[in-house]
Amino acid sequence: MDTPRAAVVTYRGNAIENTHVAHVAVVDARGRLLARFGDPFRMTLARSAAKPAQALSVIETGAPERFGFDDADIALMCASHSSEDRHIERTRAMLAKVAAHESDLRCGGHPPLSDAVYRAWIKRDYTPTGVCSNCSGKHVGMLAGAQAIGAAIADYHLPDHPMQVRVKQVVADACGLGDDEVDWGIDGCNLPTPAFPLDRLARLYASLADGADAVEAGGALTDRIRALARIHRAMTAHPELVAGEGRYCTVLMNAFGGQVVGKLGADACYGIGVRASERTRQLGADGALGISVKIEDGNLDVLYMVVSEILERLRIGTAEQRAQLAGFHRPRMLNTQGVEFGYATFPFELQAA
Amino acid sequence: MDTPRAAVVTYRGNAIENTHVAHVAVVDARGRLLARFGDPFRMTLARSAAKPAQALSVIETGAPERFGFDDADIALMCASHSSEDRHIERTRAMLAKVAAHESDLRCGGHPPLSDAVYRAWIKRDYTPTGVCSNCSGKHVGMLAGAQAIGAAIADYHLPDHPMQVRVKQVVADACGLGDDEVDWGIDGCNLPTPAFPLDRLARLYASLADGADAVEAGGALTDRIRALARIHRAMTAHPELVAGEGRYCTVLMNAFGGQVVGKLGADACYGIGVRASERTRQLGADGALGISVKIEDGNLDVLYMVVSEILERLRIGTAEQRAQLAGFHRPRMLNTQGVEFGYATFPFELQAA
Repeated sequence: MDTPRAAVVTYRGNAIENTHVAHVAVVDARGRLLARFGDPFRMTLARSAAKPAQALSVIETGAPERFGFDDADIALMCASHSSEDRHIERTRAMLAKVAAHESDLRCGGHPPLSDAVYRAWIKRDYTPTGVCSNCSGKHVGMLAGAQAIGAAIADYHLPDHPMQVRVKQVVADACGLGDDEVDWGIDGCNLPTPAFPLDRLARLYASLADGADAVEAGGALTDRIRALARIHRAMTAHPELVAGEGRYCTVLMNAFGGQVVGKLGADACYGIGVRASERTRQLGADGALGISVKIEDGNLDVLYMVVSEILERLRIGTAEQRAQLAGFHRPRMLNTQGVEFGYATFPFELQAA
Repeated sequence: MDTPRAAVVTYRGNAIENTHVAHVAVVDARGRLLARFGDPFRMTLARSAAKPAQALSVIETGAPERFGFDDADIALMCASHSSEDRHIERTRAMLAKVAAHESDLRCGGHPPLSDAVYRAWIKRDYTPTGVCSNCSGKHVGMLAGAQAIGAAIADYHLPDHPMQVRVKQVVADACGLGDDEVDWGIDGCNLPTPAFPLDRLARLYASLADGADAVEAGGALTDRIRALARIHRAMTAHPELVAGEGRYCTVLMNAFGGQVVGKLGADACYGIGVRASERTRQLGADGALGISVKIEDGNLDVLYMVVSEILERLRIGTAEQRAQLAGFHRPRMLNTQGVEFGYATFPFELQAA
């Protein structure tokens, strides 16, 4: 069968079970495409992988200073968290900082991304509400941003609310795009969510890592660069707030200790930023490196396999660091009796752009 | 982007979220290909869609007569059930009929296919065991078959056990294939599971419906045809045992009242048999009609969408019957606040073969 863009093939015995198509873009901080697979320009709904850009729009309102948000709060604004107690508690604390209430939130409760949390909720008949949404930090950030620009907090989630108008401008700008080059849909949490070419997601994440490099190097810096660096610092300093116990983003950022920032988007897209190093220069990058991945069918397990495989292929970090992703990269395929029934291959090549 | 075999495209706003590739074969009871999409000959792991053929191999040992299995028991042999109490109780009753014990089963417990059952188990700290496996009926069937052919019940699940040697022959034969044309892997429940060209799955299901037609027509019939008809009768008379409350196979067979037999296989394949009618003759079928579908990426929700769409395209049954599948066919895409965020299209055409 002709499957030109299959990035992952799973086998059961000798037979192919499933195949998965992926798109990959590797860029540098200038946005230059260094490597590709599939369609690196695929119009892609970034979903929660866009959260750092949405947080950027909040930071640029001055809301963090006005309401006293610390780095952990910024991390939660960028999170798709597991609805663990620490995530819900921080959401409530952030609501208190902006003098808002849970009833002001326009996100809804949902089964949590963590099975352990789900089981705990079921056992105590817990019905999740807005503060439990995996996007709660983003929503409180929007409430804060709305106030900081002098807008009403009511309807903060609607596309024509002044805060969302600002978000649209900042997200497009952070991706190096004009406002009219970004398409907007409605996210699972009820906020507008952007679609743009996949390479721009890589560029966004490269800019986070590049901001961190620039701040470390010192010198005169724009507010934008300081804000990007702050998001990088917040996410890499608080991986447990960006996702949760055992989740990919958390394990990834813990493993790479500040060198790598990474974030999941629903329906299987991912953004990675890698700080400049001898290795990123070998890969041809001017400044930091960005990687973005979209699995065409939306499969999250396959996304984690592919992202891990790309980090391996590009030799980002040390072998010991990458080995911490082994359970996601090459998950053992065991049946209900513990028998290994199959395996996966990665029949793709990253092509020089 | 070039997506020649995409059968389903999901949209969020105006942007494509995901696309899914599918393969479809429509055949008649003689095995003649009538319509196709994608690769109708894709080597496909039939998984639990092969259960009727595995049940056939048990029936042909004479086990049902020897152990007093009724149609409901045969239905459970063909099931991927939801681990509801009625499924577990019937499994225990079947074990008693064959004078075997749960400890003889070589399938393991797993989280159930029903979320309602899962929640109930969590609330009472229930740890599922072999009798709860969605494949429990198949396993008791194998214990019965092993005894009926005078083999030991120990290791009944291993590929070289006399019962599994028989299963391999019967499954290949029921699909109109030689033994060496079927590949075997290990299933989630630990029994061997066959891979064969997708059109043969359609043929297998056509033969179930054709058996029912032949028995109704009367006359001299082979034991094979009687056994196929019995499986058809068992499954269509007990849809709630083949899957469970609210599950696709159950809703489908309830909706079509004996005209349609259908069964899911894990990783998104499906077999359908349609009894001969004016409509199947219009579609060019000599005898009953068979349909098989495989979603290349293994997505079950997409499988149900595609199977329902094909029944619609082929105008199987009445509009009222097909409307009972609406929740699977065109599920409303609502976010956590109940806002409709997207829709799906089916940009494929069934081609005459």
